[in-house]
Amino acid sequence: MTPAKESGAVSSADHDVVVVGGGIGGLGSALALARAGQRVRVLEQAPAFGEVGAGLQMAPNATRILREWGLLDEVVDRGVLPRRLVLRDAVDGKELTHLDLAWAARQYGAPYVVIHRSDLHAILVDACRAAEVELVTDAHVDDVEVTDIGATAVQGAHRHPAALVLAADGLQSGLRARLSADTPVNSAYVAYRGAFPMSAVGDLDGLSADDVVVYVGPGCHLVQYPLRGGAMLNQVAVFRSPTALAGAPEWGGPDELDEAFAGMCAQVRSALTALWRDRKWPMFDRLPISRWVEGRLALTGDAAHPMLQYLAQGACQALEDAHCLATLATKQSAASTDHEPLEWDTILRTYNEARASRTAQVQERARFWGELWHCDGMARTLRNTMLRDRDPADRRHLDWLYAP
Amino acid sequence: MTPAKESGAVSSADHDVVVVGGGIGGLGSALALARAGQRVRVLEQAPAFGEVGAGLQMAPNATRILREWGLLDEVVDRGVLPRRLVLRDAVDGKELTHLDLAWAARQYGAPYVVIHRSDLHAILVDACRAAEVELVTDAHVDDVEVTDIGATAVQGAHRHPAALVLAADGLQSGLRARLSADTPVNSAYVAYRGAFPMSAVGDLDGLSADDVVVYVGPGCHLVQYPLRGGAMLNQVAVFRSPTALAGAPEWGGPDELDEAFAGMCAQVRSALTALWRDRKWPMFDRLPISRWVEGRLALTGDAAHPMLQYLAQGACQALEDAHCLATLATKQSAASTDHEPLEWDTILRTYNEARASRTAQVQERARFWGELWHCDGMARTLRNTMLRDRDPADRRHLDWLYAP
Repeated sequence: MTPAKESGAVSSADHDVVVVGGGIGGLGSALALARAGQRVRVLEQAPAFGEVGAGLQMAPNATRILREWGLLDEVVDRGVLPRRLVLRDAVDGKELTHLDLAWAARQYGAPYVVIHRSDLHAILVDACRAAEVELVTDAHVDDVEVTDIGATAVQGAHRHPAALVLAADGLQSGLRARLSADTPVNSAYVAYRGAFPMSAVGDLDGLSADDVVVYVGPGCHLVQYPLRGGAMLNQVAVFRSPTALAGAPEWGGPDELDEAFAGMCAQVRSALTALWRDRKWPMFDRLPISRWVEGRLALTGDAAHPMLQYLAQGACQALEDAHCLATLATKQSAASTDHEPLEWDTILRTYNEARASRTAQVQERARFWGELWHCDGMARTLRNTMLRDRDPADRRHLDWLYAP
Repeated sequence: MTPAKESGAVSSADHDVVVVGGGIGGLGSALALARAGQRVRVLEQAPAFGEVGAGLQMAPNATRILREWGLLDEVVDRGVLPRRLVLRDAVDGKELTHLDLAWAARQYGAPYVVIHRSDLHAILVDACRAAEVELVTDAHVDDVEVTDIGATAVQGAHRHPAALVLAADGLQSGLRARLSADTPVNSAYVAYRGAFPMSAVGDLDGLSADDVVVYVGPGCHLVQYPLRGGAMLNQVAVFRSPTALAGAPEWGGPDELDEAFAGMCAQVRSALTALWRDRKWPMFDRLPISRWVEGRLALTGDAAHPMLQYLAQGACQALEDAHCLATLATKQSAASTDHEPLEWDTILRTYNEARASRTAQVQERARFWGELWHCDGMARTLRNTMLRDRDPADRRHLDWLYAP
């Protein structure tokens, strides 16, 4: 364990809430709780706040929250409002179905935005600073001491006592171990990403500059969409790794990438030229757990419900967590006549109940969606028939996720 | 080769048409051509005319023809008009979709009838006799000598010259070899059948006495329907044989039957008690061929287009062949002013074109339907969703087969 290094202004003064982890989920929670009147400190183990990765999709269930936080205009400014979300068959390239995103925005009262992860992260950092959230870097939390009336994040020699500690430490969450012995589940799929200036990409076959396009194929898929007002192309190529399935410790190398997509249509194969080949993202999730709270320690974001990315809901659900928790705190404050301290136990119980069932459904549906995308044979035939027959204005499989 | 034995009244007089094979297809062609004014002789290799097997489904495309031949009332009298055709999942027993057969009869102008094979066969034998078709048993045809103006069926020392010889010798057709080198294709599925008096069957779980019910499961299915005015229960249990897949010469024994259905619902498992266990029907089809005619020799029925039984169209398509050929003959006769002999070449060319494309589609769709019935995993999930969502009055997948 490296000794904790203090790089922010860590005071010994009590904070209401300490958030462990400064990713999109942690910052979202910090911002929402600060807006609800809480004094919040965020502890990030990295030497700086930032995000690796490429594009991120923000569906109406998340942009509705960003608007409430006053951040939507900036997110839209720095991102793109795509015209359609198009599903195509990766083998023959043909359109299967689409979602008209202007129509969806009218239906769900909020837009569908795509944005670079680092841009969204930077917007949240700025908003946290403006809301007087204390952002601490180089702060690795070794443990949390939990009691019935508070919790203390222990960072080497430093102690961060608070009424509530939120574990926003992601898929590999160390704090989740206090609540569940489960481990991440290897999907045997791996993602290659790439975000390049459009000018550097060259002529990709059949590239649609206005749309989020997903090519779904047997054991693989490709996602394409523009970023930064259309100046950039974002791509994600995902495939099932034969070596991962065989149990190899090292798996999903770039040779397997080319092999996995060899039978796909020209549009998809040509897209593989615009990916980073020196970095890969093996894809894990976990099984849902029902208990997220131990005393005054609560899980949020990927620490609570890491999911496969097939519904593009990882960040969206983290923002929903943040919004839910802060709304409960605000409501309790408003109902209290004499500025009593928050009864976190009640809030956390309600938060746990509401969020664990919702996110379990998203985790499960994301897995299903992945199987649907990657199927072959008769399943592919039926999937394609169903999707082609689908009325693009059918809200049946959207409402549960996007509606307020 | 056993010496041909003459048991019928074989005259040396020329016949217009000789039909090789006295199954449902051969008799249907003989009857239709006799009704069109042709003198027809049927050569059956067995010592008697008869049918093995159990129930048979006659869809509107076939009952329309039976009505034109004046046989529908008798077929309905000796069969059953089921209320619905119901598709259920064999694992959970739940209904997936159904076809209201009274509705279908209105849509397609003819009823859906189920009848014992031997009853339909007997009706056709009687009708052939009434139409003065000459029925010859114990007549194994060794060869057909074909010229441009006629053909002669050679049965040992006997010769049966005619203007046309129709090969109605079934899946294992020897005469088809003159047109194609193809062989029957083993589907690795085997059927067990049973037709028992209702009183002997006992209480089968969830038995519906009015419906044709098909339970579709992973690698297996079960069909149940009543026969003979409801006095009899007909069942067919079909499964994929692991030993057939492994290439064993002997496969599909009754032990495999029980094993194949072990994971199915109680209704399906209880039905296995009412099957003949000492007889099995391995299921074969062939790939479609486009050429059915060599000079004055033409294929019909299973000799031309043997199909898997998943659309229950084997006999129906044979009757369509018969009707098509006879209708062309009738039309040409009507257009002729001075009773010229038929120009069979023209008729056969049109028959071949019309029927080969139609039956190729039925063969192909029957294979697809089998895969759909027997699928598992994601394909089963999607299939069940699609079928449950289906409007029972949706004619999309029916019109091509049943409409006039």
